[in-house]
Amino acid sequence: MAGKWVYRFSEGSEAMRNLLGGKGAGLAEMTRAGLPVPPGFTITTEACHLYVKEGTLPQEVRQQIDTALADLEREEGRLLGAPEHPLLVSVRSGAPISMPGMMDTVLNLGLNDRSVVGLAQETGDWRFAYDCYRRFLQMYASIVMGVNESLFEEVLAQKRAAAGVKTDAELTAEQLADLIEEYKRIVSEETGSEVPQDPYQQLYGAIEAVFRSWNNPRAKAYRAANEIPESLGTAVNVMRMVYGNMGEDSGTGVCFTRDPNTGEKVLYGEFLPNAQGEDVVAGIRTPLPMEEMERRFPEAYQQLCEVAERLERHYRDVQDLEFTVEHNRLYMLQTRSAKRTAFAAVKIALDMVNEGLIDRDTALLRVSPDQIDQLLHRTLDPNAEKKELAKGLPASPGAGSGEVVFDADRAEALAQQGRQVVLVRPETTPDDVHGVIAAQAVLTSRGGMTSHAAVVARGMGKPCVCGAEEIQIDLAERRFTARGVTIAEGDIITIDGTQGCVYLGRVPTVEPTLSHELETFLSWADQRRHLGIHANADTPQDAARARQLGAEGIGLVRTEHMFMAKDRLPAMQEMILANAPAERAEALAKILPMQEEDFYGIFKAMEGLTVTIRLLDPPLHEFLPRREVLVAQIAALEKSGASAEEIRHHRALLAQVDALHENNPMLGFRGSRLGLVYPEITQMQARAIFQAADRLWQEGGRVKLEIMYPLIGYETEFHEMNRIVSQTAEQIFAQTGRRIPYHVGTMIEVPRAAIIADKLAKECDFFSFGTNDLTQMTLGLSRDDAQGRFLGIYLKRELIPADPFISIDQEGVGALVRFAVQQARQVRPEIELGVCGEHGGEKKSIAFFRRVGLDYVSCSPYRVPGARLAAAQAEIQLEQEKGTQEVPPESVMQPA
Amino acid sequence: MAGKWVYRFSEGSEAMRNLLGGKGAGLAEMTRAGLPVPPGFTITTEACHLYVKEGTLPQEVRQQIDTALADLEREEGRLLGAPEHPLLVSVRSGAPISMPGMMDTVLNLGLNDRSVVGLAQETGDWRFAYDCYRRFLQMYASIVMGVNESLFEEVLAQKRAAAGVKTDAELTAEQLADLIEEYKRIVSEETGSEVPQDPYQQLYGAIEAVFRSWNNPRAKAYRAANEIPESLGTAVNVMRMVYGNMGEDSGTGVCFTRDPNTGEKVLYGEFLPNAQGEDVVAGIRTPLPMEEMERRFPEAYQQLCEVAERLERHYRDVQDLEFTVEHNRLYMLQTRSAKRTAFAAVKIALDMVNEGLIDRDTALLRVSPDQIDQLLHRTLDPNAEKKELAKGLPASPGAGSGEVVFDADRAEALAQQGRQVVLVRPETTPDDVHGVIAAQAVLTSRGGMTSHAAVVARGMGKPCVCGAEEIQIDLAERRFTARGVTIAEGDIITIDGTQGCVYLGRVPTVEPTLSHELETFLSWADQRRHLGIHANADTPQDAARARQLGAEGIGLVRTEHMFMAKDRLPAMQEMILANAPAERAEALAKILPMQEEDFYGIFKAMEGLTVTIRLLDPPLHEFLPRREVLVAQIAALEKSGASAEEIRHHRALLAQVDALHENNPMLGFRGSRLGLVYPEITQMQARAIFQAADRLWQEGGRVKLEIMYPLIGYETEFHEMNRIVSQTAEQIFAQTGRRIPYHVGTMIEVPRAAIIADKLAKECDFFSFGTNDLTQMTLGLSRDDAQGRFLGIYLKRELIPADPFISIDQEGVGALVRFAVQQARQVRPEIELGVCGEHGGEKKSIAFFRRVGLDYVSCSPYRVPGARLAAAQAEIQLEQEKGTQEVPPESVMQPA
Repeated sequence: MAGKWVYRFSEGSEAMRNLLGGKGAGLAEMTRAGLPVPPGFTITTEACHLYVKEGTLPQEVRQQIDTALADLEREEGRLLGAPEHPLLVSVRSGAPISMPGMMDTVLNLGLNDRSVVGLAQETGDWRFAYDCYRRFLQMYASIVMGVNESLFEEVLAQKRAAAGVKTDAELTAEQLADLIEEYKRIVSEETGSEVPQDPYQQLYGAIEAVFRSWNNPRAKAYRAANEIPESLGTAVNVMRMVYGNMGEDSGTGVCFTRDPNTGEKVLYGEFLPNAQGEDVVAGIRTPLPMEEMERRFPEAYQQLCEVAERLERHYRDVQDLEFTVEHNRLYMLQTRSAKRTAFAAVKIALDMVNEGLIDRDTALLRVSPDQIDQLLHRTLDPNAEKKELAKGLPASPGAGSGEVVFDADRAEALAQQGRQVVLVRPETTPDDVHGVIAAQAVLTSRGGMTSHAAVVARGMGKPCVCGAEEIQIDLAERRFTARGVTIAEGDIITIDGTQGCVYLGRVPTVEPTLSHELETFLSWADQRRHLGIHANADTPQDAARARQLGAEGIGLVRTEHMFMAKDRLPAMQEMILANAPAERAEALAKILPMQEEDFYGIFKAMEGLTVTIRLLDPPLHEFLPRREVLVAQIAALEKSGASAEEIRHHRALLAQVDALHENNPMLGFRGSRLGLVYPEITQMQARAIFQAADRLWQEGGRVKLEIMYPLIGYETEFHEMNRIVSQTAEQIFAQTGRRIPYHVGTMIEVPRAAIIADKLAKECDFFSFGTNDLTQMTLGLSRDDAQGRFLGIYLKRELIPADPFISIDQEGVGALVRFAVQQARQVRPEIELGVCGEHGGEKKSIAFFRRVGLDYVSCSPYRVPGARLAAAQAEIQLEQEKGTQEVPPESVMQPA
Repeated sequence: MAGKWVYRFSEGSEAMRNLLGGKGAGLAEMTRAGLPVPPGFTITTEACHLYVKEGTLPQEVRQQIDTALADLEREEGRLLGAPEHPLLVSVRSGAPISMPGMMDTVLNLGLNDRSVVGLAQETGDWRFAYDCYRRFLQMYASIVMGVNESLFEEVLAQKRAAAGVKTDAELTAEQLADLIEEYKRIVSEETGSEVPQDPYQQLYGAIEAVFRSWNNPRAKAYRAANEIPESLGTAVNVMRMVYGNMGEDSGTGVCFTRDPNTGEKVLYGEFLPNAQGEDVVAGIRTPLPMEEMERRFPEAYQQLCEVAERLERHYRDVQDLEFTVEHNRLYMLQTRSAKRTAFAAVKIALDMVNEGLIDRDTALLRVSPDQIDQLLHRTLDPNAEKKELAKGLPASPGAGSGEVVFDADRAEALAQQGRQVVLVRPETTPDDVHGVIAAQAVLTSRGGMTSHAAVVARGMGKPCVCGAEEIQIDLAERRFTARGVTIAEGDIITIDGTQGCVYLGRVPTVEPTLSHELETFLSWADQRRHLGIHANADTPQDAARARQLGAEGIGLVRTEHMFMAKDRLPAMQEMILANAPAERAEALAKILPMQEEDFYGIFKAMEGLTVTIRLLDPPLHEFLPRREVLVAQIAALEKSGASAEEIRHHRALLAQVDALHENNPMLGFRGSRLGLVYPEITQMQARAIFQAADRLWQEGGRVKLEIMYPLIGYETEFHEMNRIVSQTAEQIFAQTGRRIPYHVGTMIEVPRAAIIADKLAKECDFFSFGTNDLTQMTLGLSRDDAQGRFLGIYLKRELIPADPFISIDQEGVGALVRFAVQQARQVRPEIELGVCGEHGGEKKSIAFFRRVGLDYVSCSPYRVPGARLAAAQAEIQLEQEKGTQEVPPESVMQPA
């Protein structure tokens, strides 16, 4: 084992982010740029791996830490924790990807019973010195020694009560000195041990605790939620303490180089005079806006503005800065790429291109497809009547409604039952993250725009209102009161995170629109991508919407959804009850005009583009009432003396439900199997399609018509379906004297279809991968049965890397897709290949589909804009990886 | 178009069977061997294709027929249908594969109003001549002109009645002459036309009619049932007539060169003096045994014996001969390979090897594995009278009789009283297993060859008929109806699972034995095959039986079947109802000793061989009562005032049934998914296995122990299951101080597992392809839902070539198997690869598995002997195809 495990800030750089963590790399960059950063050093993520693996810090790492500390001591002319002029340091975690609040920090390290006196003497402020020591003891005991932090909070609260004061700042030096003794007692009682007096022992304790914190449960949960690899590890930063709580000429703050909510180019942040960093984050005191800082600390403010400008230019991205002012002197404690709302992300990306800071590719990579999805979230109907309960800070935009819950565990439990909840807390902590994930929206009564709740909610795109001080939360009684209204747990409220408002009940929402900025941004994506983006739509309305959102075609019209409407179901049921082809044809004749009308509407909406119609897919029992419902209805009818005719009809339905019952309907009598056994259905659908198309043609309109056969496993099935459809087509062409051009193809959703893709490709104009069913069959995994059941356990235990129904299983299902693509292209190079499962709207899946050489993806209309961006990103990333413009599909499923 | 369409008998040979048909090739061989065959010629199957395609005989074919006929006329010194000394011929079909009675024949062709006089004058027998003419008119009119044959039979019967005689032979020449006029009148009335007087027109009419008969419905049905390709076509044989009905020195007969029922080496057949061939077949006169022929026609008989001996030596197989004696002179009309019983097939194969006629490979190819299956089950006494009630699928071979019962409990109760019962159910579920165990045979009205009832019954060697849709079961009234007969509970029926028939009453059966001959025969198969044959067995009894039948190991122990027994189910249900791991462990502790006992018994039975144990596979709900049953029980309990405790228990069961309900249990929470979420179950099973093995080891016994994890899709699942099992193993090894060697592997039944076979192979000692489930998932086809429903329609319409649950779908499922085999062998060449689905007992599948390079197949015990033969045949055929001893697996699923 040999290597460099410790870097002084002046030795690092941004390029060493994986080694030094984000914070360490930022401190190094700022140090090298000559910005005012307190001196210190970083212990690398590799040291973290070693520690985690060996359970102890290797001797060589310790030696390098000792050397770096000795250098720091020499530079500062102080010794760590010395009785006089003590050097005090902070020990902070910093992973390569920011995980705000997820890991641990120890401040004021170096204080002990003797150095606290030195600190007091040096600053002339006993109260300050004792407060630092108290904080250190509390942090060290909880983080390094595992003492429950609430024990310290309790005695602190008792002390405030006894002193008759409201805030900690009002406690006197003597009272703080007492508190220190009580803290020591708690530590001794809880651990049988003490916070070490030896500053070097303190240092090692803290460093190891930070390394350990990489694997604490909330950090693991955060990484799982944010898809951060477990393999990264965290670095540790040891830095000379600077104090924002040294009086009224000191303070601390966080700021963004642009407004992270709107993207506006202003210095945006919050400042707390006479405070330490954790006071801002904790949200206990409400901080002041930046203008106030400018007024009170004009010089430091001016310097901060210049630093912000330099850092933004340096990083070519919006920065999130932490700083402290100590006796009017500015110190930069952190710089990192700023989290921002989806709205801001788009605006900033556009602005930075216009400012010449970045190119378009970079801009396209700066916004995530998920953020685009967020911009398309529903907003409150401006015309809806609503009763406002409270106002707060618009901490994370969007609107959400649900049952009020007062703790994260309950939020998670209810969400798992499929219920929508709003998490209401005085403030949130990292322990609440699973509740935020589970909630539709978040409301806190304390904390600012950069409080924990705000940052986390924005990161997840959850609507959030913070610091709504009007609401009085009673956690014990599980209720809150606002403007005279009491809201109990389970009552419904609505959060408008865009406006910062809280409303009673469920307020209706309206569909979002694409802003001008977003249109521009997406047009860049369109220029960049090769992959076509189609939408799944079953009605003319959906189709029109999809087109507005940029869909270049309809990749999947599910014809069965048209029969589910209340006025159409009876005709469908009649068809199912029919005993003979003639009877069936009669019922189908009633459905024909409705179906034709639907198709015509969709064609009209999509004029000039592709429309891919899938023939009837689901098992027939889906059109019938559920067995229990029918049994109950029959019993009720018999009791109420209904007509014999009506009872007979219900009995016939019941008999048919029983006859159609299947043990595994997913693998049952559906798709083309139905269309072949009941060719009348296929004929009717084909007739409706061609008649509708003919109407459009008569009017001079055109679409690129594609007819798709579902659940094909054998090429004979394709032949036979196609024979029925083409015969019907020819009949209609003969009647009208006009030939409508059309393509035919098959869904690839049965694994066997992928395996015989070469055979199918011989006669298919196109394939559309139905990756939902293909996933269910390839994995032997029923989506509805698995999700919310053992699949959750599998994810939690990392038996599978991701939910395969959300992001395509590249290794398994993906291998079949790749194989089928290769086989099909060999037989018919011009075959059109797409995907119409919901994976078509998911960014990783989109990148995969581009990589294997599909022509388009099709997803639900609201996912179209995000998919457009994801497709552009896939293209850019491919080029970056391969350094070439044209990337051939990978070869696959081929014995090496 | 150019070619040779017509061959004189002396030009053909056995090698031209596809061109000349079986009959034509036989006649050619006999002619070339100098045997007494009437002269003639054959029109080829290629001419048949031309005729079918063009609807008429091409000119060139006609010319060749004319030439061949002219040659024949010259040789015989007679002209076809001439007024004096007419040449008369027969026109017979003859396809390359024998289709007895399926196609058409015209005899006495050439007769007309003038030549009949010539025939009478030549033979001096007017009665004979008119009878020939009458027969010719009847055959020609019905076969060539489509007149309903029964019209002729009617007037013939009237004529007999009017004449006061019983048989046609008693009619006088005058009466026959009248009949001829009546026949002509019928033809005229029915067709407005006449049987042509022109002999050449007659000839072409008959030839074309035979070609058309290739596509008559009964011929098509026969081909479908016997898997004879449509593409073969039939040839036509034109042959000079010879007459067995020319008086007491003439006769006709059929005989076999050995007894086709027993295999004994005796000339076996029947002879009718003074008769034509169709009289033998029609069964109007009782034929005489061969000894009688020897007595009456000593010279012809002696000649026949010599001919038989020569033909058997020539063909090296038992021949089925047709012959005619005309005025004491023997003529051979046909020779073909004889159909024989399973019993005879084995004996003949053995004898012919011993006689030096054939080698062992030929002998092994002479018996079909299906015939071996037949020898291993009780069969109905072929001589018994029986009334058929219904037909269904021959789901499990053998025969069984007993009282009809309609539920499993009653079946068990009656069986315990020593009564024989037949369980009749709409379909069976795992709840019925104790009823199947108790019953002599099983009958279901729904479900296919691999439905639950079928699989369980086959596994137990119980006769079973499934999917007998003709029977209407009324469970409420405890009776069923079929073909107008009502069978109440307690009535006796007989099931013939070999044929798929249900009979009224008790039909006598005969007992099977593994005869000494069969043992010898199978030992030859064993020497020849490379593929191992294992058996699926769940009990010590099954295992012992499998070993007796030649199984070299147990390839699948289904551990769950052990829990279905009535005394074990409560403990299993207790386990399922448990709320916490500890509670679950308590219930499992009760199951542990039972499971250990079962394993010990199986190990003991299989000492020295491999035992592959699959851990728990089915979804838990299979161990619980059905919902309807529970609801009814709860209602009954409440009404009867049962204890609160009992009602609570039933309610808990109901709640659990609901909680475990799945839409698609096939793709649900089962297999290793269960074993991972409830590791206690896996631990218990592992403990039972190792404790049982340890007992055997203590006694000095050994087995090759293999533990198999079901439903694996991800390698993580394998790791985790294996971790649990190996930890348990180590605990036990530590306790006992003895290490039991064992192998671990996975079922390959989820398509994904096949796709990642290389990854799984890294840590698996073996794979076992579970082709039942692999088929369901790869084809997206639920076995129980599809069989007896649309799968039947698919088969009928030839959308699929065969039931994929009976014979493996080589193109789809097979491609995955091949791919997985290749991938696995690349990573781990020594990996053991087998199959444990029921395909393992089917001959075509077995040949496929050998071809792709599996090491063994595993099937139900009674299929083991057939599988041993099939494996040997696969080996021989492979060598014959490739001309080499060592055949590597084919390469597959590899983009070309």
